Amino acid sequence: MAEIIQLSENRRDTQDALDRLQKHFTDELVKVEQTITDHMSSAASLIPEISGHIVGAGGKRLRPLLTLSAARLSGYQGDKQIMLAAAVEFMHTATLLHDDVVDDSDMRRGKPTARKIWGNPASVLVGDFLLGQAFRMMVTTGSLAALNTLSTAAAIIAEGEVMQMAALQNVQISEDNYLQIIEAKTAALFAAAAEVGGIVANAPEAEIEALKSFGRNLGIAFQLVDDALDYGSVGQVLGKNTGADFREGKITLPFILAFHRGDDETRAFWQRIAAAESLPDKDDFNRAVEEMHRTGALRDTVARAAHYGEKARDALGLFKTGETRQLMTELVDFCIARAY
Amino acid sequence: MAEIIQLSENRRDTQDALDRLQKHFTDELVKVEQTITDHMSSAASLIPEISGHIVGAGGKRLRPLLTLSAARLSGYQGDKQIMLAAAVEFMHTATLLHDDVVDDSDMRRGKPTARKIWGNPASVLVGDFLLGQAFRMMVTTGSLAALNTLSTAAAIIAEGEVMQMAALQNVQISEDNYLQIIEAKTAALFAAAAEVGGIVANAPEAEIEALKSFGRNLGIAFQLVDDALDYGSVGQVLGKNTGADFREGKITLPFILAFHRGDDETRAFWQRIAAAESLPDKDDFNRAVEEMHRTGALRDTVARAAHYGEKARDALGLFKTGETRQLMTELVDFCIARAY
Repeated sequence: MAEIIQLSENRRDTQDALDRLQKHFTDELVKVEQTITDHMSSAASLIPEISGHIVGAGGKRLRPLLTLSAARLSGYQGDKQIMLAAAVEFMHTATLLHDDVVDDSDMRRGKPTARKIWGNPASVLVGDFLLGQAFRMMVTTGSLAALNTLSTAAAIIAEGEVMQMAALQNVQISEDNYLQIIEAKTAALFAAAAEVGGIVANAPEAEIEALKSFGRNLGIAFQLVDDALDYGSVGQVLGKNTGADFREGKITLPFILAFHRGDDETRAFWQRIAAAESLPDKDDFNRAVEEMHRTGALRDTVARAAHYGEKARDALGLFKTGETRQLMTELVDFCIARAY
Repeated sequence: MAEIIQLSENRRDTQDALDRLQKHFTDELVKVEQTITDHMSSAASLIPEISGHIVGAGGKRLRPLLTLSAARLSGYQGDKQIMLAAAVEFMHTATLLHDDVVDDSDMRRGKPTARKIWGNPASVLVGDFLLGQAFRMMVTTGSLAALNTLSTAAAIIAEGEVMQMAALQNVQISEDNYLQIIEAKTAALFAAAAEVGGIVANAPEAEIEALKSFGRNLGIAFQLVDDALDYGSVGQVLGKNTGADFREGKITLPFILAFHRGDDETRAFWQRIAAAESLPDKDDFNRAVEEMHRTGALRDTVARAAHYGEKARDALGLFKTGETRQLMTELVDFCIARAY
């Protein structure tokens, strides 16, 4: 009980941490938002409509904040980080639009998805538009190195999604294999977002490498906590329906751990969920959560996330201490503490 | 009758024209194919599988040929045109994969579409992968100007597709409005493909502009002939099912002209087709073709195409005469003659 109280206090603190990071970058975030809005406009009115629906849907701007933080940490004095941060958010948004089509999702962050409102074709095409715009925006910075990093990330993200799709019903997937997938589909963009902040600042190679490592490890931690939250009880904080992955029979780390730790009968249960031949019922979900707790799968998913969080924190060790570095460290805490 | 015979002889000649252009660039095309294959590889085996299905499906490599021709015409001596030509083909392939999802198409060039075989999710994601790879490939050439041209084209293509989707059932769409759509969704990539050939060769501004104009006008002509062919009798040459646009109720230039030239009763017919509430039958298609001929809509669609073809041909006037320019001119003839 004492632990639960402590954890929820911890959550309040870390929620403040994200607020503090956003405040630290208020001026730049305002410019990022303006840049985003400017580049969503089009004679085809569906484009600003759909883009506005998803870009405006209360995103945390986590990835743009990585670019801004990394540039600031590297002592950058120019303004190219604004355009890159907006481009990163466009890449992310394009991915969300396409993911919802791929996963047949009807809800995201507590709102109907674009594909639910405007249909799959519009979501595919507007995603393509945003991706094209993202590249145009990067080109205006004139940084071939940033373009290389972000275009590579774009290909890797899609590759990760394809790998995940191919592994769809493979309940025997190894933890390592799964990590490979989330490194590609989630962590690659976190890594690239941070890396380009260093690139644009002309930071030394080792510092760019450190920023990339920070982003990559934070991204893995972030995804693992997301996975855990699907079986947790604080889904509303995320605005994501608890049990959504479960209902789709999606194999995530909590699933993998619970499967590996279960007996034959339990494995048969997980197998049935992954086969997704029929929608699991409330009893199924309750059993799944019970298994997660009984086997420690949920706790250990968060422990794995914490491991990557530690790596992210340590990666910042190369940089001078100061408010930006402090806030970036607290951002890591925020990502982990969401799990509670 | 005499005219028909003459036209079909013309078709044989121009088919040879495409062959001749391909032969003229045999060495470079071999390298383009190798570059394409190299960049399709991935640990996610679905990626080379699906990419191979569509990239290998007997494409004419028209767009890569534009890049190669433009570079040669501009006297380019390096080898960056290879990478750009392959990137252009990847952009085109990504568009095809997504288009088939958007249009619910089951067949393309006489083969089942990727989405028919592997499903929509895989088609969306592999399209995204190819687009990401295309940008990576462009980045390796180090040409920011080429990146600018091609990323702008990527955004404009998606914009054109969205505009077309929004105009889906608008039978009253003007010819100008329709042209705006095909300039975006088809001609923009033709224009960019030719333009980057000049850019990489460091050609003078006026020549780059001429190459762009050549590509743009050729692209419009190409699309209009494609539109006409849907109602024509030589669909098998294209490997595209005759009547596919018609069955989907797609509004193209022949449709627009026939609608504008029809009486109330005929317009009601076209309105019903565009509403696409039920699949039109064989009689509907026969009536449509009859209307096309009666009103001269088909003939005049091809006449409009020929107008843009003339502009494309004249755009080449800036360049020295020689085999490359001659073959490019004949390529225009090929694009128009396909209609017969």
